[in-house]
Amino acid sequence: ALTECIAAQFQLGSLAGRHVVITAGPTREAIDPVRYLTNRSSGKMGYALAEAALDAGAQVTLVSGPVNLSPPPKVRLVAVESALEMHAATLAAAESADVVIGAAAVADYRPQVAAQDKLKKHAGEPMQLTLVENPDIIADVAALPGLRFVVGFAAETQHLEEYAQAKLKLKRLHAIIANNVADGGVFEQDENEVTVFSRDGGTVSFARRGKKQLARGLIQWIAAALAEKPCD
Amino acid sequence: ALTECIAAQFQLGSLAGRHVVITAGPTREAIDPVRYLTNRSSGKMGYALAEAALDAGAQVTLVSGPVNLSPPPKVRLVAVESALEMHAATLAAAESADVVIGAAAVADYRPQVAAQDKLKKHAGEPMQLTLVENPDIIADVAALPGLRFVVGFAAETQHLEEYAQAKLKLKRLHAIIANNVADGGVFEQDENEVTVFSRDGGTVSFARRGKKQLARGLIQWIAAALAEKPCD
Repeated sequence: ALTECIAAQFQLGSLAGRHVVITAGPTREAIDPVRYLTNRSSGKMGYALAEAALDAGAQVTLVSGPVNLSPPPKVRLVAVESALEMHAATLAAAESADVVIGAAAVADYRPQVAAQDKLKKHAGEPMQLTLVENPDIIADVAALPGLRFVVGFAAETQHLEEYAQAKLKLKRLHAIIANNVADGGVFEQDENEVTVFSRDGGTVSFARRGKKQLARGLIQWIAAALAEKPCD
Repeated sequence: ALTECIAAQFQLGSLAGRHVVITAGPTREAIDPVRYLTNRSSGKMGYALAEAALDAGAQVTLVSGPVNLSPPPKVRLVAVESALEMHAATLAAAESADVVIGAAAVADYRPQVAAQDKLKKHAGEPMQLTLVENPDIIADVAALPGLRFVVGFAAETQHLEEYAQAKLKLKRLHAIIANNVADGGVFEQDENEVTVFSRDGGTVSFARRGKKQLARGLIQWIAAALAEKPCD
């Protein structure tokens, strides 16, 4: 591993020989057999990152919620639906990963009870839905034993830097990619602009561009950050 | 109109000269700018009905929630997102309709408040989401002044006939198309099997088949039912 590590440092931007795990898309949290909670994630950013990582030479596992995208050829796709399923699949894949990128928009909450049969409505009465917290997938990956480079996303509609920096520290990530999702400018769109905050205090801004082009830039940045790590 | 009505009776299965309004797909009920409640409807049944109605010679308005389908050529598409938007669009289109088919899986409930900014989670605490009832679109169409043939859908996971017959009466529909959505056999699938219960006590079962073929059968049945109405 030492020789590969040293060799990698001479190949800036390459992820050859690396296993990259990427989560993508929304999750669906069942209320009953037909109804669910979800969010506006299209999966485009995560799928673009998977493609860019493959292009950079990595072996890629893509843990994906329900989306309408074709997975890039050669990716190992693990299709999941709920946050709990994504949690289990991602932690299993992360064991052997050098890099884990949490690009999925995982539901923070799920209904406490998923009804077996379709709930009937009771005319006129409001309904209380009790939601319980889902596990934090990327924080749990960062807490795994072993060394891997763990990157999260922070999608916020306000206080972008403050919230992103707080998540970076709380979840013990190496870096967090922050994007402002206010005003419908990111979710379901083809473009995005982000700022990357890293544990060492570094900040890199990527101006608005296509998600594929942005993904290549982010993967290059991650490959460079990996190459800077001392070989041990 | 009398001559057209009499002429129509000689053209069984034709909807020439008729305006058919069809609702399709799920609705999305916003919790905040990124999260929402929805359901597993793909819109395939409603879109297949729109195509079959066009093929039968009708002018078709398709009021559709967010789906990943291309609308049939020549359809008048009204794209909506929430149940309230679908309600307004459908009632407006229904004014001039001869037939209204409610194939959409409209959310029964919406969050009482849609937050302006993304809700932050509060670690460890369950969250209560208060839901309020949405208006019943097809029942409100059936209650409009004027004559039109109004058809609803009943998607149930249990007590199919009992619940369907109750909805037929309560909503004052001319017919209700009942399908069993238990065990993932309908939503997001290409096939379906249904039973149609009509106000006059009639029952017609359509065995499991492709949604496009089923749609043609249902449109023929509706055209025949329309043709049986006395001309006045």
